[in-house]
Amino acid sequence: MKNFDINEDPHRRYNPLINEWVLVSPHRSKRPWQGQNETVPSDALPEYDPTCYLCPGNVRANGMVNPDYESSFVFENDFAALKQEEIAFEENSSATFFRAKPERGISRVVCFSPKHNLTLPEMPVEAIENIIHTWQKEYTDLGNVDYINHVQIFENKGSVMGCSNPHPHGQIWAQSSLPTEVEKTQNNLKAYFDKHNKTLLEEYVKEELKLDARIVIENDHFVVLVPFWAIWPYETMIVSKRNISKITDFTETEVTDFAVILKQLTTKYDNLFETSFPYSSGIHQSPTDGELHPEWHFHMHFYPPLLRSATVKKFMVGYEMMGESQRDITPEKSAAFLREQSNVHYKNR
Amino acid sequence: MKNFDINEDPHRRYNPLINEWVLVSPHRSKRPWQGQNETVPSDALPEYDPTCYLCPGNVRANGMVNPDYESSFVFENDFAALKQEEIAFEENSSATFFRAKPERGISRVVCFSPKHNLTLPEMPVEAIENIIHTWQKEYTDLGNVDYINHVQIFENKGSVMGCSNPHPHGQIWAQSSLPTEVEKTQNNLKAYFDKHNKTLLEEYVKEELKLDARIVIENDHFVVLVPFWAIWPYETMIVSKRNISKITDFTETEVTDFAVILKQLTTKYDNLFETSFPYSSGIHQSPTDGELHPEWHFHMHFYPPLLRSATVKKFMVGYEMMGESQRDITPEKSAAFLREQSNVHYKNR
Ligand SMILES: O=P(O)(O)O[C@H]1O[C@H](CO)[C@@H](O)[C@H](O)[C@H]1O
Ligand SMILES: O=P(O)(O)O[C@H]1O[C@H](CO)[C@@H](O)[C@H](O)[C@H]1O
Repeated sequence: MKNFDINEDPHRRYNPLINEWVLVSPHRSKRPWQGQNETVPSDALPEYDPTCYLCPGNVRANGMVNPDYESSFVFENDFAALKQEEIAFEENSSATFFRAKPERGISRVVCFSPKHNLTLPEMPVEAIENIIHTWQKEYTDLGNVDYINHVQIFENKGSVMGCSNPHPHGQIWAQSSLPTEVEKTQNNLKAYFDKHNKTLLEEYVKEELKLDARIVIENDHFVVLVPFWAIWPYETMIVSKRNISKITDFTETEVTDFAVILKQLTTKYDNLFETSFPYSSGIHQSPTDGELHPEWHFHMHFYPPLLRSATVKKFMVGYEMMGESQRDITPEKSAAFLREQSNVHYKNR
Repeated sequence: MKNFDINEDPHRRYNPLINEWVLVSPHRSKRPWQGQNETVPSDALPEYDPTCYLCPGNVRANGMVNPDYESSFVFENDFAALKQEEIAFEENSSATFFRAKPERGISRVVCFSPKHNLTLPEMPVEAIENIIHTWQKEYTDLGNVDYINHVQIFENKGSVMGCSNPHPHGQIWAQSSLPTEVEKTQNNLKAYFDKHNKTLLEEYVKEELKLDARIVIENDHFVVLVPFWAIWPYETMIVSKRNISKITDFTETEVTDFAVILKQLTTKYDNLFETSFPYSSGIHQSPTDGELHPEWHFHMHFYPPLLRSATVKKFMVGYEMMGESQRDITPEKSAAFLREQSNVHYKNR
């Protein structure tokens, strides 16, 4: 009988963060594609767009005028999925069916730059540091609101990721409950911490650095790697080396190192298919429920959909929705492709 | 303080099948859309396409020639994600990191009709009955293979759902492990059955029929409803009324009733936005591991991405990937919209 070769044979890999598996089919990465091609948004955007509701000085849908901001700019989402109003309610948590409960929250938009066409990889490191400081401030302010127990910082980049405006921006949804994925992660982080008295990600990163098979970038304080259990073709995770539970615990050197690695990662992404690389990214860190959370370890997920070119993406559909996530190219190969990309943006070559 | 109004206020709903929550933001359904628009594939396809690798008599990528089939036609996937070969391997299930194990399986394609342009809603009921008989045969044959413990029947319809060929077809991925979503579902079904000695879905459907707020179609043996916990805008579930654990337990009357309700549901879907409605669908039923599974209750999920027109879909991205699924329109409204659609296909009006 043939011996298992993880680089060739179909297999499943285990994700200890959410206690789920992914199906990996390395031999399938050469299958031809006759399906949908994405349209590549034009690279040639103006620095200022008079019709953009995020550019400085422009009027938004609700009639408010954006200030003439010069670095980042935060405002309340005009079409927020969450509302601040308190709602009276009694829960029946013993019911199996028809369980619903009101959810309070605040939803904000974070413009990364006044320039309509300046994405993360093209920004100077100082501008990215400024965004990180903004995230710190928002995490603190929102986390201090009495009914807010979780602050989700994220970015949808590119029209293929449902982003309706190319002006570089992210979002923050802060709410009273722990969202499903965060709660799953917390349960697994906590079980590990209770058993080992170390964070799961501290141990994982150490092992990954030893193996050096999935590391994309490393600096003094952060590592970018393709997780062993990644589901998206070029999925990565930025993890702090030190056991930091939240962004507000960063030292100023860590802020800089994080800014540098964010710039390098997004530059490599853009260089991979010479396109403004779409993704959804988001930070997972300690909830703001007032408890100590030694089990939490700062990390940022990047979920990019592109598979083999600027126009061909991976579809997580029938089997993936009914069964489990599936990937073709192995995480080790993806890490190698990303690693070998230049840190100089293709537009500046 | 305002009292909770499930039709107006942001809230979370609980999904007892997978023990997860969904965020519902009813007030947000009127937000404008300036983002990506899908292209609508042309309705005008020929009955036979000489370049289609699924049409009768044509040559496939691997050089095989399709027979001149007259109803449905099943073949082994030319670029299968799973392989039948047995692989030697010893698992270290106590490890937290780097857990991987080989996965054996068989992956097949099921052509629904020899006609390149004939989708489910446009087929006569007898042709759909024939597809159901094909599913029964495949479930039996694949389930009988000694190392196959789960048979996933599914369909990706439409290019927006990663379907690379408009010729009506579905797929079957059969494998040795229970995929993640199936295992989650089984755990919850089993816990309910052990406690109540009834299947979760039998009880749920009874309650839904009483409430009559989310029922889309009902006939003697099946119900189509928008689950209370649906995440996609027009997500539905076909559930058998009788406690049937697998498709091979259908009586012939049930086969007919299932065919009729499949035709009606897909017709209503097409009529909603007067377009060939994209979706991924899949059947969840008893594993084929040789055990009795009284907890399983036959159901078929439909996950359609469209939100408000043939070109505007819902994006499950940043918040949804990092936090939890989110929807705007309430399941009750979606059910009402679907219910009021005609059972006559818009092309035949
Ligand atoms: O097998 P197909 O139709 O080529 O591929 C499609 O369905 C598969 C199963 O859901 C997915 O893994 C692919 O990403 C999708 O493009
Ligand atoms: O808030 P936006 O950018 O308009 O909307 C985008 O991000 C949200 C949060 O991930 C999603 O719910 C929407 O489906 C998506 O289009």
